[in-house]
Amino acid sequence: MTSRTTGSVRIVGAGLLGTSIGLALSKLGVDVIVADQSPAVQSLAIDYGAGRAQTSEDRPSTVIVCVPPDVTANVIAREISAFPDAVVTDVASVKSEILTELKSAGVDLRNYVGSHPMAGRERGGAASGRADLFAGRVWVVSPNEESSAEAIKRVEDLALDLGSASVQVSAQDHDRAVAVVSHVPQLVASLTASTLLQANAEDIELAGQGIRDTTRIAASDPKLWLQILTANSEQVVKVLKLFQSQLQGVIGALEDTSAPGSLSTISNALSDGNLGVAKLPGKHGSKATNYSLITVMIDDKPGELARLLTEIGEIGVNLEEIKLEHSPSSAVGLVEVSVLPEAEPTLVAELTSRNWKLVG
Amino acid sequence: MTSRTTGSVRIVGAGLLGTSIGLALSKLGVDVIVADQSPAVQSLAIDYGAGRAQTSEDRPSTVIVCVPPDVTANVIAREISAFPDAVVTDVASVKSEILTELKSAGVDLRNYVGSHPMAGRERGGAASGRADLFAGRVWVVSPNEESSAEAIKRVEDLALDLGSASVQVSAQDHDRAVAVVSHVPQLVASLTASTLLQANAEDIELAGQGIRDTTRIAASDPKLWLQILTANSEQVVKVLKLFQSQLQGVIGALEDTSAPGSLSTISNALSDGNLGVAKLPGKHGSKATNYSLITVMIDDKPGELARLLTEIGEIGVNLEEIKLEHSPSSAVGLVEVSVLPEAEPTLVAELTSRNWKLVG
Repeated sequence: MTSRTTGSVRIVGAGLLGTSIGLALSKLGVDVIVADQSPAVQSLAIDYGAGRAQTSEDRPSTVIVCVPPDVTANVIAREISAFPDAVVTDVASVKSEILTELKSAGVDLRNYVGSHPMAGRERGGAASGRADLFAGRVWVVSPNEESSAEAIKRVEDLALDLGSASVQVSAQDHDRAVAVVSHVPQLVASLTASTLLQANAEDIELAGQGIRDTTRIAASDPKLWLQILTANSEQVVKVLKLFQSQLQGVIGALEDTSAPGSLSTISNALSDGNLGVAKLPGKHGSKATNYSLITVMIDDKPGELARLLTEIGEIGVNLEEIKLEHSPSSAVGLVEVSVLPEAEPTLVAELTSRNWKLVG
Repeated sequence: MTSRTTGSVRIVGAGLLGTSIGLALSKLGVDVIVADQSPAVQSLAIDYGAGRAQTSEDRPSTVIVCVPPDVTANVIAREISAFPDAVVTDVASVKSEILTELKSAGVDLRNYVGSHPMAGRERGGAASGRADLFAGRVWVVSPNEESSAEAIKRVEDLALDLGSASVQVSAQDHDRAVAVVSHVPQLVASLTASTLLQANAEDIELAGQGIRDTTRIAASDPKLWLQILTANSEQVVKVLKLFQSQLQGVIGALEDTSAPGSLSTISNALSDGNLGVAKLPGKHGSKATNYSLITVMIDDKPGELARLLTEIGEIGVNLEEIKLEHSPSSAVGLVEVSVLPEAEPTLVAELTSRNWKLVG
């Protein structure tokens, strides 16, 4: 594999994102320099293969700032000043406030283009880094009025090298978008999870998959999210107020379900939820791909899953996703395989003729 | 396999739950009768193998009412009157209102014990039925003051036959519990998804996995959920008001992040979310089992996954869960396998020595 990115790439901050970028670029043969204010973190990332330490001779062609949002503008300014010929980008989840800070500090922004890869994990840190964290994800490229065409191109190439789909979005549009698709869902998940603190332990034992999914991201780092939410507070408040007014309406309706209009208020909220979720793009962040889901019941014994996958391989169908649902109290497991819709009839026919039990 | 359940079991209502129960009991060799007010739905469920049609001679030992919540009490009363010797249960997601209706109708409740299996899917209908829908799930058994010990035992045996863990909970305690672990998360997911209706299409294109998870259940059936929410409105409103007051606090803090106490209000909401999500039980609804997660990077070519699973089988480790993350833009796939913590060191050492690439 060859990279579009040329020259040395300096990564500042070896957390989850910095380390992941370093791993991916190193794999492509790019010369990666990793710098972290913590020598231990820097060594760890280098040990993982994310890159090498900086030398005084290094003149990076590209600098990627991967530090927490509240210090991002400062570090960008410092890097622009230290490496005036390098293209500088960052990966912070908020873009407008950083740009405003840079402008008011009078920084020369020709070589600066913001980024926001729409990828992450609940677990942070170098140890969670993954070379393919960005593969198939959307990478927001956010130029400012001064950004040179060359700098924009360089950051777009970087996104492509990492396997992402790059999308140009202004800082302002970005922050409005992430308020609704990321920041409000994060806060709502935290508030939903918080209601569990008032509940009896026995009540929580009845929890099923629904609340687990709706609160998964509530396990994210509060320090990071405090920075993100405060930096984008104006946009977040707009969406939260919309949410709040609908919540208020539903509470009123539930308080008196026999009042005229109450049932339609509740019903509309639920139907609007159906419509809203249908607007989400497909799994990989770009246009939706609707996979066909086939469920196969297998005996829960060693080798069965491997045998199934070997036969699917023989049939010549490519699996897009696979999920094993283990049933601890029963002697069977359910394997959900997703395939392209056009492959479904063949796979169903072949598996059935090979005596696999299909469900659903 | 033999069943604890004896005699014929009559299932009224051949939707997702009724059909799934019928499939599971039929597999155990139980004589299952399936009845649905829609002849087409009834035939479909019978075709799937959920049971047979009722004859005039049938005297079921057990009746399971699997109809929508708003008609459940009426159908229970009718079944108790038609089959006075049978134990009657239902599977509705709300329990108090049904019990109140039955009591005020003066129904003899000795043979009635409510149920609520904590299992379901976003997709309803007979066609979505699965014999192992209840395997490893919690099955709430909810006796009333009049329920006979024999009736309670019979419903608990039914839950065990279906692979569930039965838990005795009063109607009142049940409804308080599901308000917090199920009904409020459902409504919150719907309201979160609704905010997307006001957003630009381009903004929604930036959606990542977080909002997909938090809104997955917003795709559920509004008709069903309108019934559930109105039937449990008192408990739901209590939790929603708690949620609302915390939301109000966070909105106030975000409106003026420099006011004293604002940052701690936001930070506490996020930290409380961490604590809340940590209180959730493990995947299978009973006590939490913490699996160790091992991520293996494989070449995205046919047969690789099968080869990996074959080798894991050779190593002798049992997989609890498996997830394939396909990276469309890259040449690799990530396989996440969950194993019991004690199996992790062996598996890591063996896979590494067999040249598999472990990540994270």
